[in-house]
Amino acid sequence: MRHVISALVINEPGVLAGVAGMFSARGFNIDSLVVGRTEDPNLSRMTIVVSADDNTLDQVRKQLAKLVAVAEVRDFAGTAYIERDLLLITVTVSADKRREVVDIVELFRGKVVDVSQTSVMIELAGTEDKLEAFIDLMRPYGIEQTARTGVIAMPRGGTHTAKAAAQSGGSTKRVRTLDAPAGVALPPS
Amino acid sequence: MRHVISALVINEPGVLAGVAGMFSARGFNIDSLVVGRTEDPNLSRMTIVVSADDNTLDQVRKQLAKLVAVAEVRDFAGTAYIERDLLLITVTVSADKRREVVDIVELFRGKVVDVSQTSVMIELAGTEDKLEAFIDLMRPYGIEQTARTGVIAMPRGGTHTAKAAAQSGGSTKRVRTLDAPAGVALPPS
Repeated sequence: MRHVISALVINEPGVLAGVAGMFSARGFNIDSLVVGRTEDPNLSRMTIVVSADDNTLDQVRKQLAKLVAVAEVRDFAGTAYIERDLLLITVTVSADKRREVVDIVELFRGKVVDVSQTSVMIELAGTEDKLEAFIDLMRPYGIEQTARTGVIAMPRGGTHTAKAAAQSGGSTKRVRTLDAPAGVALPPS
Repeated sequence: MRHVISALVINEPGVLAGVAGMFSARGFNIDSLVVGRTEDPNLSRMTIVVSADDNTLDQVRKQLAKLVAVAEVRDFAGTAYIERDLLLITVTVSADKRREVVDIVELFRGKVVDVSQTSVMIELAGTEDKLEAFIDLMRPYGIEQTARTGVIAMPRGGTHTAKAAAQSGGSTKRVRTLDAPAGVALPPS
């Protein structure tokens, strides 16, 4: 089963290396891993998509909590959430076919961000499925290059913050790691 | 100086750990690191934003080429390129102020992707500067949560593929690593 896991981690060198090394050493299969900044300059949000059975997933969560300066781990599986991936794609297209491509872009609510005589560059955000469907439609024209960010996710319905979920017995685990280096402030738990 | 570096890497466990470990060990300061899939299932594209002087940057590039199964390293600094970051943000807003927020979202060409009685979730893609400006405008309303992917980038003008740049003496370095594991096919160079 596909799981989207969000971890709030302390922003310091070595955290990403720790997580990546753990996944690598254990042979866990990551579909994507994104590390992005948050409103708190001390914290980054790591979003990991893994295809795993419940047992493997449990290991992933435990290892995450153990290895890293992780402030919070959350599994979105079975909850209401929004996920988005971002695609930049350059498609080969001559002037006479350009309208065709732009029509598809508009149907997908994407944006053309660059045009040359022989190509267009398109920006499109959406679920992985939506991006795959769009890429499939562009393939016959000729794809020059793609770049994708990987998935980020957020719970639907607002006020359902991680803290609230933890307090109400939701699926968020708030853990205080023992191996956080001295001098790094942990967020209040 | 801020540099956006794109590396095409062989898709296998350990690559991310290698890159992350190198940055961590050398103390290089990464602003963001994104690993996303490409059209070739054997290759991933890694986009790294670093703030570094020319000397440090040169080290980063050399270390990248040395440590990892890297097929290609490209520095976008000084070239024409598009970069995009993706933001999901949940903003606290009651019904009477919702229109105000939605107007700002529309001016930024963002999308409201979820609404509750007390909040809206917004999706916005753009440069880091644009996202920062938007977040600043949302701050007075109250930010519940943000998630960001980090930057991906692509050269402007099409047909300017990595290969073409390399052949024309452009800024792309195409390197064949010596430490690629046996059995992993390297892309043609």
